[in-house]
Amino acid sequence: MLKNNFPLGIFDSGIGGLTIADAIIKCLPHEDILYFGDTAHLPYGDKSPELVRKYAAQITEFLLEHNCKMLVIACNTASAFAYDFLQENYGQRIKIINVVEPLVENLEADRSLSKIAIIGTRGTIASGVYPKKIKAVIPNVEVVCKETPLLAPMIEAGFFHDKISQEIIEAYLSDQQFKNIDAIVLACTHYPLIKKEIQVFFGEKVKVFDSTDFTQKAVKNVLEKEQLLNNQKKKGQHRFFLSDNTASFRATAKILFGSEIESEFYALSK
Amino acid sequence: MLKNNFPLGIFDSGIGGLTIADAIIKCLPHEDILYFGDTAHLPYGDKSPELVRKYAAQITEFLLEHNCKMLVIACNTASAFAYDFLQENYGQRIKIINVVEPLVENLEADRSLSKIAIIGTRGTIASGVYPKKIKAVIPNVEVVCKETPLLAPMIEAGFFHDKISQEIIEAYLSDQQFKNIDAIVLACTHYPLIKKEIQVFFGEKVKVFDSTDFTQKAVKNVLEKEQLLNNQKKKGQHRFFLSDNTASFRATAKILFGSEIESEFYALSK
Repeated sequence: MLKNNFPLGIFDSGIGGLTIADAIIKCLPHEDILYFGDTAHLPYGDKSPELVRKYAAQITEFLLEHNCKMLVIACNTASAFAYDFLQENYGQRIKIINVVEPLVENLEADRSLSKIAIIGTRGTIASGVYPKKIKAVIPNVEVVCKETPLLAPMIEAGFFHDKISQEIIEAYLSDQQFKNIDAIVLACTHYPLIKKEIQVFFGEKVKVFDSTDFTQKAVKNVLEKEQLLNNQKKKGQHRFFLSDNTASFRATAKILFGSEIESEFYALSK
Repeated sequence: MLKNNFPLGIFDSGIGGLTIADAIIKCLPHEDILYFGDTAHLPYGDKSPELVRKYAAQITEFLLEHNCKMLVIACNTASAFAYDFLQENYGQRIKIINVVEPLVENLEADRSLSKIAIIGTRGTIASGVYPKKIKAVIPNVEVVCKETPLLAPMIEAGFFHDKISQEIIEAYLSDQQFKNIDAIVLACTHYPLIKKEIQVFFGEKVKVFDSTDFTQKAVKNVLEKEQLLNNQKKKGQHRFFLSDNTASFRATAKILFGSEIESEFYALSK
């Protein structure tokens, strides 16, 4: 039986999911949060669907053992490859939210879109999850996709809002297939950190969508609906677990979010 | 008992070690080769020493089961973190060559060097293996180190010999500490693919060292000394094993080496 004082579980292959965790923490400050960064296996973007499902299942088991009331898949590649699998195997025991569906629902609500671009990891793009789900709800829309594998490592290496990031973004986005798009979907949880640069590249006529806001709202809605909101008065506790005890998670978290993160180690496979 | 018709085992976290394998194949065409790319866990550059040792031990067990006569660690991060460990645990059963020592021996032989730069992954640089080993043999040399974590993903994403790679290389190498260097060591097995660009950046007065030639010669020397050279007349067989069955290894291998690689899947951890 899920209880409202149980924590929210959020996971990602590493650091990108912190953009989602950050948005959830701001919107739901009284929730206790367990964040799992699978630093032993990061990044997921170049791994096979089977392997991403295996890692996602191991993390889900860990979060279930820690009594999480909800599982947020804060990674597009894991949402693309593992959501259906997790839903089938764990959906009876825990509410599962991914980062793809809340965003697609919001695209659907926006009646002005006729051509949408998607950028993400090799895995997310190869999965075809975005065109499939978007076309299911907006039948006449054109969807163009491009893998942009250097953007996440670029951000993790600290290149954003500078000349290098601008050049790389330009190299990827100066693509003929992106001509006349109305919107672009940032289908990787790292990309909110370069959202402004992408907006500047396309100008105001193109809408730039990322998952943070929509996911956070989806989490809130489900918790409300299920009467699972934590009604404690004090601020929630936030714990960060890593499957590899690396210095670089902390270093990168500091570059990206400006603050130190205290993390705990948990080995996924013995 | 090691026999001369046993295969050579070569491993890396993924694709970078193919630069080493390529050099060995050209120099020793009659050797059978087993290459293991740990695509389930790539890249090693941001992982902890403990985890890299664990993965390296699993791969070594696999290569021993396949009767390899020699183990070549074709990865700087694994050489830095796991060589001593593997030597201690498996050195009695198999000859082990890493990519650091052959290069350092050749620096020692070059009497003209007074200031040497090292670039590599976060792991390789944090290990301090290069300054330690270089200073042990050339006591008065100055060694300056810099982590360049975007270079390997840049190459894997297909950016080399272009404007983007030039800008990124320039951003990393325009570092005051590199003033007046005589030599730079490319301490990552991906970097031979951008060796020319780095040479152009520094000009002819700076010597650019990478491991491929020295490692290949070290392999040949040890096989000769131990009378383990394969004396078959026909060309050696080359098998490529991957711990994750990804499309991106094949795609990247094709970008980097211009040819298709047929790979076999072997799961390291069940």
